Amino acid sequence: MRAMKLMPLIVVAALATAAHAKVRSQLVEYKQGDTVLEGYLAYDDAAKGKRPGVLVVHAWMGLDDNAKKRADMLAGLGYVAFAADIYGKGVRPKDRDEAGKLAGKYKTDRALLRARVNAGFEKMLADPHVDAAKTAAIGYCFGGTTVLELARSGTAVSGVVSFHGGLDSPAPADAKQIKAKVLVLHGAADFYEKPADFAAFQKELADAKVDWQLVEYGGAAHCFTDKGAGNDPSTGCAYDAAADTRSWAAMRAFFDEIFKNGK
Amino acid sequence: MRAMKLMPLIVVAALATAAHAKVRSQLVEYKQGDTVLEGYLAYDDAAKGKRPGVLVVHAWMGLDDNAKKRADMLAGLGYVAFAADIYGKGVRPKDRDEAGKLAGKYKTDRALLRARVNAGFEKMLADPHVDAAKTAAIGYCFGGTTVLELARSGTAVSGVVSFHGGLDSPAPADAKQIKAKVLVLHGAADFYEKPADFAAFQKELADAKVDWQLVEYGGAAHCFTDKGAGNDPSTGCAYDAAADTRSWAAMRAFFDEIFKNGK
Repeated sequence: MRAMKLMPLIVVAALATAAHAKVRSQLVEYKQGDTVLEGYLAYDDAAKGKRPGVLVVHAWMGLDDNAKKRADMLAGLGYVAFAADIYGKGVRPKDRDEAGKLAGKYKTDRALLRARVNAGFEKMLADPHVDAAKTAAIGYCFGGTTVLELARSGTAVSGVVSFHGGLDSPAPADAKQIKAKVLVLHGAADFYEKPADFAAFQKELADAKVDWQLVEYGGAAHCFTDKGAGNDPSTGCAYDAAADTRSWAAMRAFFDEIFKNGK
Repeated sequence: MRAMKLMPLIVVAALATAAHAKVRSQLVEYKQGDTVLEGYLAYDDAAKGKRPGVLVVHAWMGLDDNAKKRADMLAGLGYVAFAADIYGKGVRPKDRDEAGKLAGKYKTDRALLRARVNAGFEKMLADPHVDAAKTAAIGYCFGGTTVLELARSGTAVSGVVSFHGGLDSPAPADAKQIKAKVLVLHGAADFYEKPADFAAFQKELADAKVDWQLVEYGGAAHCFTDKGAGNDPSTGCAYDAAADTRSWAAMRAFFDEIFKNGK
């Protein structure tokens, strides 16, 4: 009997999933204050109605292929994805040195970082396909720090996910503003984060009674989701296929939980 | 076209899942040396053929309702589940004090603990429905320590999962014998495990290049899977519904990965 009831639903789900995959994407100009920014919007053109919106925040090199690829993957899963631009239209560091300086500027000026990420979040919300009650933000490295700052700014976002992001906060008391559930996905061999950073982060979120989870992937270095990062963890930045697959699955399970009242 | 190909597979899967659920269970006597042990076997009577086997190891009170419930749940998922008995048939501590002493005896004598858990594993393998190439072991509290010892003993088990288990090892070099992938699910408010224990555990597994993952659930205390533990984390031992649900889902995703070549 149970099988008979389940079947039609499952068949519909299979058809819906397979009928999707008409992912469209476009560059979208928007502003924060007087600064022109250029993000990347991806969505499934075949889907109908409102759906959850997921903001994607790039790593220290600026809006890059990895952020765009993740937006496309999220659109393929049925979400509206908007890869935000924190640095500004056309502002792209030439090398790691310049990237470190630029990311450092925003990590030092958290008010500006919050303004930039919130501008992207607002732009995403303005999309007519986005269900404003079901939103998330994910970020990579510098973008991980950035989505934590989005949460710390008090924005009504259902969940944030940091992939190998920096966890430090100059204003730990701001955690009491966090409305989001927080998922941190980290490489255990990422030596950019020190045990003291983890301890401070855990204390920050525990003191504010935030709903948080932290996953550590053994052997994975910083950059573990980035295929362009090479395969040598001793460089401090390397791709790790197992951690990439597992962290993406962890994010999907997290989304299933936070968006569970229909999507 | 893709939908047409996918549909029959998905319908078969739905039927198979729904047709299951004829979970049978029975007490099973077995031995380690001269000691008589009594475990609890659960399996789906309606399923055909061999399937992965999952050993379940109880917490410090001995083979209890939680371990049996988990075995039933695993059987409902299509696995053969065997809840092992580490202490011996009829040996059940009367209270926490006695439980602490009994668990302590085995935590001190790791050779005996390994012999006991391996006896349960062998008994499970002897079941004609178990695919010996696809096995896992999960354990709660004391049982978490125990399944880690199963892995450290060099047994060919595909994966082990510790739920709020003790991580310490008196013989860290034995980690080089580990063949299993390791998943540790832990409450961040579990004050039985100290930061130094985590650091030692991570070093032990990293030095031996073990495939490991650690998940920390914010706010969750020791015993977070045990509904009988009450709801006050300040007692050191409390149920946490979110961490229970999430950790079970993490275990299922882990099993999907380690058993992925058909089950």
